[in-house]
This record gives sequence, C-alpha cells and structure tokens, in this order.
Amino acid sequence: MRITGLHAVDLRFPLIGGAGSDSVHVDPTYSFATCILETAEGVFGTGFALTLGRGNDLVCRAIEYHEPLVVGTRLSDVVARLGVYFSQWANESQLRWLGPQKGVVHLALAAVLNAVVDAWAKAEGKPLWRLLLDLAPEQVVELVDFTTIGDYLTREEAIELLRTSRIPESELDHLLANGYPAYDTSVGWLGYSRDDLVANAFRSLELGYSALKLKVGKSDLREDVERVASVREAIGADTMLMIDANQIWDVERAVIAGRALAEYDPFWLEEPVHPDDVFGYRAVVDALAPIRIAGGEHCSNQVLFKNLIRAEALHIVQPDAVRLGGLPEYLAVALLAAKAGLVALPHVGDMAQLHQHLIVFTRVALGMPELPLEMIPHLAEHFQDPCRLSRGAYVLPQTAGATTTFTDEAIARYSL
Amino acid sequence: MRITGLHAVDLRFPLIGGAGSDSVHVDPTYSFATCILETAEGVFGTGFALTLGRGNDLVCRAIEYHEPLVVGTRLSDVVARLGVYFSQWANESQLRWLGPQKGVVHLALAAVLNAVVDAWAKAEGKPLWRLLLDLAPEQVVELVDFTTIGDYLTREEAIELLRTSRIPESELDHLLANGYPAYDTSVGWLGYSRDDLVANAFRSLELGYSALKLKVGKSDLREDVERVASVREAIGADTMLMIDANQIWDVERAVIAGRALAEYDPFWLEEPVHPDDVFGYRAVVDALAPIRIAGGEHCSNQVLFKNLIRAEALHIVQPDAVRLGGLPEYLAVALLAAKAGLVALPHVGDMAQLHQHLIVFTRVALGMPELPLEMIPHLAEHFQDPCRLSRGAYVLPQTAGATTTFTDEAIARYSL
Repeated sequence: MRITGLHAVDLRFPLIGGAGSDSVHVDPTYSFATCILETAEGVFGTGFALTLGRGNDLVCRAIEYHEPLVVGTRLSDVVARLGVYFSQWANESQLRWLGPQKGVVHLALAAVLNAVVDAWAKAEGKPLWRLLLDLAPEQVVELVDFTTIGDYLTREEAIELLRTSRIPESELDHLLANGYPAYDTSVGWLGYSRDDLVANAFRSLELGYSALKLKVGKSDLREDVERVASVREAIGADTMLMIDANQIWDVERAVIAGRALAEYDPFWLEEPVHPDDVFGYRAVVDALAPIRIAGGEHCSNQVLFKNLIRAEALHIVQPDAVRLGGLPEYLAVALLAAKAGLVALPHVGDMAQLHQHLIVFTRVALGMPELPLEMIPHLAEHFQDPCRLSRGAYVLPQTAGATTTFTDEAIARYSL
Repeated sequence: MRITGLHAVDLRFPLIGGAGSDSVHVDPTYSFATCILETAEGVFGTGFALTLGRGNDLVCRAIEYHEPLVVGTRLSDVVARLGVYFSQWANESQLRWLGPQKGVVHLALAAVLNAVVDAWAKAEGKPLWRLLLDLAPEQVVELVDFTTIGDYLTREEAIELLRTSRIPESELDHLLANGYPAYDTSVGWLGYSRDDLVANAFRSLELGYSALKLKVGKSDLREDVERVASVREAIGADTMLMIDANQIWDVERAVIAGRALAEYDPFWLEEPVHPDDVFGYRAVVDALAPIRIAGGEHCSNQVLFKNLIRAEALHIVQPDAVRLGGLPEYLAVALLAAKAGLVALPHVGDMAQLHQHLIVFTRVALGMPELPLEMIPHLAEHFQDPCRLSRGAYVLPQTAGATTTFTDEAIARYSL
C-alpha cells in the first residue's frame, strides 16, 4: 500500500463566549493544520496539529513541504520502522534549521505522522488502541527513535518496561465496560465569570464527571483564590480539582500562588512557569511539595521532556501527540516517564480524538494509573466519529483508525 | 519617529562546491528571511534570520504577521523599553502557540527586532556597537526581559555586572586600532576534501588568521581524525583549532570522538549532541574534561540557555541574535553567561554583520575575554557595508546602523 498523495487543509473553528481562553491565550480560534494522506488503495489518513488561529497557514505550508519525503513510500515499510522515518523526516537537512524538532515544522511533522498512523489503523481494520496493544514490545520500540534518548532509556530497557508493566487483560475488560475516566476542562476557562464556573461545575457533576479543571492566572491572585474556592465549595471535597496557570507566572509568583491555592486541595498545579524552564519547574516542585506539578503541553520534543524528567521537575508528564512529533515521540515520552516512575497523562490538543486511543495503550501496556484524561468538548461535531462520553468516561472507540477524520461539512465550511 | 511600514523579503543565496555543509546540514542554500522597517522620516531598518532554504518563506510570512504589532509604534518608545516590547511581541496570544519563543515565529521575531535595532542606530547616527557602549547600565537592562530569567539573574544583578565588568577605555582603543580577532570557519566545511582543508588552512594563515574551525561528524570517525590531524600538522601547534560536530552524535559517540580528537588540541568541541539535550551536554562536559564544550547556535531562547548554564553543561556559550529573539535575548544570554563566569561568544548566522557590533559590546561592557569571533565570508558582497577583515581581525564598522542592509542588487537578484 503506497502513499500516493498528501495535502494540507487549513481548518479554523471559531469559539464563542470565552471558550478556550486562559491566562496567556486570551482569544483563541481553535484551528487544525491538517494533513490528509491518500494511498493507491483509497485508504485515507488524517492527522493534524492544533493552533490558535494566526499562523495555522504556516503549519499547513510546512505540511506540504513533507510531500517529497512521504509520497511514494510504502505504508507498511513506514509503520514497521516508524522511529527511523520519524528521525529522517524530523531531520530533513534544510527544514530542521527551522527547529530542530520544535515550532511550526515540528507541528507539521505531528500532522504528517499522525496521518500515517490513522491510515495504518484503517488499513489494519482496527481502532488504534487495539492495534497498538496487539504489537509485541519489540514492535512497539520500532515506533520510537532512541538516538536522542538512549543515554537515559535504551531500546532494551524499553522492551523490558513493556514486558513487565502490562496490566492484566481483565483491566482492559474493565475499560471496555466502563470507559476511561475523563476530567472536564470546559467548566473553567479563564474568560468565564465566577458564577459561570460554579454553574458549569454543577452541570459537569450531573453529567457524571468526578474531576474538573480550572484555569487560573488572573492579574489579581485574590480573584484566582475566590474562583477556586467557589468551585471547591460547590463540588465538595471528593471531586478531583486540577488547576492550570498556562505559563503565566514566574517562579516567585508561582510559589506564592501555589501556597495560596493549596488549601483548596488541587490534584495538580499545571504549567506554573515558562514551559522551557527546567530549573524553574524544579524550584516550584521543591517549594510547593507535596503539591503535584504537571506540565508538558508546550514541550516540543522528546529531548526537552527528557530534561524535565531527569531534573525531577514534574510529577505529571503531559505529552501531546499533536505538539510532539506524533505517535513516535508520544510513545518515547510515555516510556521515559515510565522509566522515571512518573505519570504520563496526555494533554489533548486534538480534543482527545487521538489521545483516547493513546491513553488506553498507556494505561494497559505501561501500567500507568487510571487518572482521568482531559476532555474538551467544543469541536466534537466536526469529527466523523467524535469522542463518546458516558457518565464522565470515554467509551473506547470501535471504528478502524485513529478517529481523526473530519466530516465533509467541517472541511467544506471551515477551510480557509 | 514612528514606524510606518514593515515588509518581508525572501532572499536566497546559492552556495557552491560544498560551502556551508556540515554533518547534519548537507546541502544548504543560505537564505535570509528579511524584515525591512520604514519610518515616516525615511529611516529604514533591516533585520533577518538565517535559514538553509526550504521554509524561508514561512519565516517571511511570520515576519508579516508582526505588522499589526509593530507598525504605528514610536521607535524611541520601543527602543527605550525594548525588553517589554520583546515580551509583548514574543507572547502574541495566538502566534506564541507556534512556539513559544522557538521555531519559525521566533526566527521572524529576531528579524523584526533586529530591524528595529538597525533603525535605532541609524536614527542615532552611530554604529550599533558605539550606541550600545554609550548606554548606561540602567538603560542596557531595559533592553532585556527579565521575567523568565529573574530567578537566576535579576535586573539589579545585571546592572551590577555591567558596572563592575567593564574594561578600561584603553582596551577599546586597542580594538579600534587592531580590530576584533576572527576565526575562519570557511576552511573546513564537511563537504570539502582533506586536500582542500589543508590548502584552505594555509591560505587562511597567509591572510593573517590565527584561529580556524573544522567540521567533523563523518560516518567513519577515522576520517574525522585524519582530517583534523592533517590540518593540525599543517597549521602547527600555535594556531587555535575549533572542532564542530553540528549535533550529529549521541552522548556515547561524542565521548568516543572527543577522546580520539583530543590529541590534536582542539580549543573547543562544538555542538557534540542534540542542542536541546541539557544533561547530554553535561555528560559530555564531564566525560571530556578538560576539553572545552561549546554550543548554543540552535538554542532558541533565553530560557533554554538558562537551563544549559544552570546545568553547567557548556563552557563556551554561543548565542546567535538571528536565532534568539534578536538583541534583547542576545543581551540576556550574554548577561547570564557573565553571571555564571562563562564565555559568551556568538555564532554568526548573520555572517557577523550584526555580531561584529555585539561582540565589541560583549568584550568591553561585560569584560569577556577577547576570543576570536567566527568569520564566514560567503555572502559579503550582498551587504552595503560588508564586514571588513584585516590580518584576521574585524575592523570596527564606523557607519551608522547595524550594517545589516543588503545591496539593491542583492534584493533585486536574489529575492524569491
């Protein structure tokens, strides 16, 4: 099955009423720089990167620059050694200067690689989570490029981790019956009023969620405290409450804010400081213990994650397969976290369409704890097979592929 | 003086015969994504980022996305608080998602900010190095954004560093009389044959250089050793020889290669491993001591440099003002290096047109040792005021501005 075509689609979905807003990203237009691959046999694969609007066209153009690398390859060759292809494509000798492995060209690579993965699962006739769980450890590690992480985690160690970490098949039956738990991010965008937060939180509990996330980072910390306090009071002590600062603070402010918010028992504090600031993260971890620190949604590649992990600067590692270089780097980061004894729990820049598969693999094959996966509902109607939630849990998808295909209407109506 | 116009120019300059080639970047077309700013008074400012060809258009388009931020501002306001403007522009709420502060959008910001700086120096009627040296420490720190580095270096510490590090005015007279020393990178591109290396090295010595750089990273390490050995034999023990691997190795290979090359007395070993790999760099530093390790040309921002510096993972810190977010981050990194007692010595992605100014400031205002600045001669003819070299030293420019203006012919002939 040869890949015969690649094209990019620039999709932009307006949000309304402050949805998607946080302390730093105040006016997002959720946009997907989308790669659609075609094979001679008529199998299509879709992958995409999230942007907030401006510059989505740059990622689309960068996707098109991958055409000479991708078109003409045999799908089965590529997916059998996806780690090698990742490395080749991520190191294209001219494009890599624009990164390397970060920014616009790496977002484009995420779209391309995830389109390959979607096509692969469709060709195999399996949902991606099933396809990945059916691979032997020796096959899984072929999806990963160890050249830049081998000094911390070797291929052999990764195989051993996959052999020893897998949980019993009965746990998978449990996930099939009950779904994978979700937490609701959409209750707490920073642009929402305090009253809205509380109303949203109640509605979320009624829908069956037992975990919510709030954005913080108002210019006046008292406002953050009041908002968090109101929601904590509304939801009671037993509901998990995540708090997300989206990079707005410096180390000093993060520590002050973390201490002020600690009494509302956050399950974690997310992105307290600049995403590149390894020692800043570590300082926050040390100062705010035992509060868990989460981060990674803006971490561009497996090397940067390796730094954070080796510096013991995070508790909850949040790889995003549409920010990282697709499935290969997602798997690399999950394996790095497993080696370090940390939790890998994705950020869902894809609205979880892809990550609902990856979390099942991460839970079952790596034995990660069953912590809730982020849920952002805003764009569900634009996918052919949108995530299905039932009583606050993701119902495991059964259609073949990575559930990343957009509806024809979405492409017709929202393409730029 | 208000900024009234901004436009981008996509300049691509073919290189011939393997010039510019290294272990990873095998076929470069040196290209400049160029920003030209215009003021109501007719002062123009030029800034640019280097790319290797493909994707230069992406950076140009990203430059144009800065127009609404830049056009309409008053030049004097911007340059009086350039650190604040840097932070605002680097955190544009949608574009920052594509980084933050890395990749295509950050390269674009470098071009924009350096165009501002060129216009500023032209408006003041001074070469940039003179303009910067005429600023008080309190004015210099206003060019820097401390929000993401303040946990390691505060504004007050930076002022104190600038107060105490400045070398006597007589040293500046020395630089004016003798120029700032250069090392020749163009002798040793990886695409050149061993015979060419030796011939180039002899020619370079004849021109008055006393420092050269060789690229390494051949697939067979013996070939690297032979090439380095031949050049060392040709130039004798007293000529400084830098060695540059351009990221090709992993930690293990870097250590093996570094040990094999040590007997040829490299002044430093540059970019041994992936540029993001903080702990990898540190492992190489530890294993190869006392060989000096250099790096930074692919380090995107001041936070990533702060990591490398705090991890004691580098000896020679190589900021590049056309990769970093322009002058503000160049100064930040130089100050971080000064605080750590390390050498800041730029990589010259601008062919040193801008860095010939910055190195004078770095030497005089921060008292950095007078180590030679990289010299890459290939594109000199395309600048209105090309770097002037005399007996292996940069002659300090005397024209107003940052000497970044292209000739009309270059723009007419090499614009895409």
